[in-house]
Amino acid sequence: MFIKKYKIGVAYAHCDLPCGVYNPMQARIEAESIKAIIDKYNANKDETFRARCVVIKEERARLVKEHLSILWSDFFKDEHFNKYPHLHKLFNDTLKLVTLVKNSFDVNNSTKLLDSIDQIADIFWEVKRSM
Amino acid sequence: MFIKKYKIGVAYAHCDLPCGVYNPMQARIEAESIKAIIDKYNANKDETFRARCVVIKEERARLVKEHLSILWSDFFKDEHFNKYPHLHKLFNDTLKLVTLVKNSFDVNNSTKLLDSIDQIADIFWEVKRSM
Amino acid sequence: MFIKKYKIGVAYAHCDLPCGVYNPMQARIEAESIKAIIDKYNANKDETFRARCVVIKEERARLVKEHLSILWSDFFKDEHFNKYPHLHKLFNDTLKLVTLVKNSFDVNNSTKLLDSIDQIADIFWEVKRSM
Amino acid sequence: MFIKKYKIGVAYAHCDLPCGVYNPMQARIEAESIKAIIDKYNANKDETFRARCVVIKEERARLVKEHLSILWSDFFKDEHFNKYPHLHKLFNDTLKLVTLVKNSFDVNNSTKLLDSIDQIADIFWEVKRSM
Amino acid sequence: MFIKKYKIGVAYAHCDLPCGVYNPMQARIEAESIKAIIDKYNANKDETFRARCVVIKEERARLVKEHLSILWSDFFKDEHFNKYPHLHKLFNDTLKLVTLVKNSFDVNNSTKLLDSIDQIADIFWEVKRSM
Amino acid sequence: MFIKKYKIGVAYAHCDLPCGVYNPMQARIEAESIKAIIDKYNANKDETFRARCVVIKEERARLVKEHLSILWSDFFKDEHFNKYPHLHKLFNDTLKLVTLVKNSFDVNNSTKLLDSIDQIADIFWEVKRSM
Repeated sequence: MFIKKYKIGVAYAHCDLPCGVYNPMQARIEAESIKAIIDKYNANKDETFRARCVVIKEERARLVKEHLSILWSDFFKDEHFNKYPHLHKLFNDTLKLVTLVKNSFDVNNSTKLLDSIDQIADIFWEVKRSM
Repeated sequence: MFIKKYKIGVAYAHCDLPCGVYNPMQARIEAESIKAIIDKYNANKDETFRARCVVIKEERARLVKEHLSILWSDFFKDEHFNKYPHLHKLFNDTLKLVTLVKNSFDVNNSTKLLDSIDQIADIFWEVKRSM
Repeated sequence: MFIKKYKIGVAYAHCDLPCGVYNPMQARIEAESIKAIIDKYNANKDETFRARCVVIKEERARLVKEHLSILWSDFFKDEHFNKYPHLHKLFNDTLKLVTLVKNSFDVNNSTKLLDSIDQIADIFWEVKRSM
Repeated sequence: MFIKKYKIGVAYAHCDLPCGVYNPMQARIEAESIKAIIDKYNANKDETFRARCVVIKEERARLVKEHLSILWSDFFKDEHFNKYPHLHKLFNDTLKLVTLVKNSFDVNNSTKLLDSIDQIADIFWEVKRSM
Repeated sequence: MFIKKYKIGVAYAHCDLPCGVYNPMQARIEAESIKAIIDKYNANKDETFRARCVVIKEERARLVKEHLSILWSDFFKDEHFNKYPHLHKLFNDTLKLVTLVKNSFDVNNSTKLLDSIDQIADIFWEVKRSM
Repeated sequence: MFIKKYKIGVAYAHCDLPCGVYNPMQARIEAESIKAIIDKYNANKDETFRARCVVIKEERARLVKEHLSILWSDFFKDEHFNKYPHLHKLFNDTLKLVTLVKNSFDVNNSTKLLDSIDQIADIFWEVKRSM
């Protein structure tokens, strides 16, 4: 079975019903897609392909922002921001990084974005385990 | 680190650039959200809350369909459909199940949907490993 | 010709309420638009115009996929897939063709896409008449 | 009947590239869907079903507005508005009718909407033939 | 200047519930964004930046059309079109101007668009004050 | 009152091109729409009307979140968060308020939301004037 196999237990809520299912994996998958798009762009000079890369990266980056914003505004509560005082800035910096990623095909930015999302995920799972 | 911790190695591509990053987890997270919405609906008689459940379940179900359709049309190739002759029908049945899930708050349907997605995920990861 | 061939009297349902109104014409109009966009792209060197062609073709192609996916998952039932054993593959190939159409401005692909949609429409109307 | 009446041979362009493919059929299919939704709503007392009808009708009606707005702003030119002096008001009244259709499940409004769209289509095809 | 000229005290309704809150400011902000995008495009030769300008201008222009269409179909009534006989044409010309703005990075078109929106806003606030 | 208080002369940028045009008015107009929807809901017992209120309020609230998120992640820089140390929390609380507003038709929440947006706007214009 999929979930059992990967030992991730359960995934957690993500809409502001709230359904209670949040998962930083959603932002990460989009960010991995962005990194793959950037790699492919840099290896391909075709004009149409490159224009599509811009269009699709824009949309994937929008989704990263959307997924992260939901975590920031709906999953994390005051008590968590008190416990992790740098968490507001971590989210804000990560979103600013998404804007940077939209503006270039520099693979370093997309790597930094993945790192930032992983830092958020670390805190997310720490909080989940303590619930 | 998030990904290493859960031993899922890497997530794989999902847009039709194609970026090459596909992951059945995306459909599963939405389906888990749907199950959570159905549970909450059945435990809450508030009219506004219930109407929101309909609206949000509709959108989450749409996303399940979207994520599954991408796997079916862009990730899996003829060779995979040849190797797994029931795969077309498995996808088609799963999408029909999503329509059923939209039409009720019967938790059994959402459980069946999760099972179906897991069956697709089993095949997906089997194919990934053999690449 | 598409419309004349089927002498359609009414259009039929297309959402998964289901409202019961499905019509392959919706996919076809978008595919005709794509063909027109490709023709105009190839006749016009203006950079802005060409970038817009990429953006708009992407969206129209997304709509072709959406309209076809609904027919595949909501209009056609098991009995139809039994009667037309190649129908799953026909849909799958057509969706793969849409991805190809997104990736180039080769008019041949868009012509093949129209042909494929017409083959689906042939089966669709045959099923409709036998209902 | 709509299609038979016009003996249309091809469908015509609809985005503001412009691709040059416009077709009032797009608005009509959505309006037929709306009529079917209203009929089904009135024959079904299930709370979830009815809530879904509201959600889906809202979206279909939005699409009717979108398709009609494109015809009004991009297909028809000054010369057509001069030739058909009531055309502005016909479009405006039809859009106001869509708002009315959103606000109730009165089947009369959806029938009037179909009639209005057919009047627009009459003029549309008259203009097409004279091009 | 737009805001100062009207001394607006409150903003007014804009969905077709209708919530009764309409405000031409929504269209204007998007049009100002378009003008800013065009200025930045003309001052920057970077390929990625320019492609993003096309994508984002397309979306902003779509929003201008959407906001204007709502004013035209939902805020203004027959009595207003009778009082301002050129109002239909003013809206139609403005929407056609949006299409033109999508098709180039000529700053003159975006300036004309702002002027046209201001003319609509003049009439809008005149009507509001007389309610 | 919001507009009069700031004597705003021009509206400012809002996409992450960035076009440089940000304006808290966009969030405020949607929040005013929400308040109007809540008032109308409480004065109207019609089932269809009320269901539409839920659907439309959901969308308007989503737009409030979107507009605020852009201000938070793209307009405000580190120096502003240093100068206004409560600004992160103010945004976060305001977004949490939007979730609350989605979940009820209590007019108090929508009034608090307008107040919160005005507090953000105060800081926004203070920053703008000092640029």
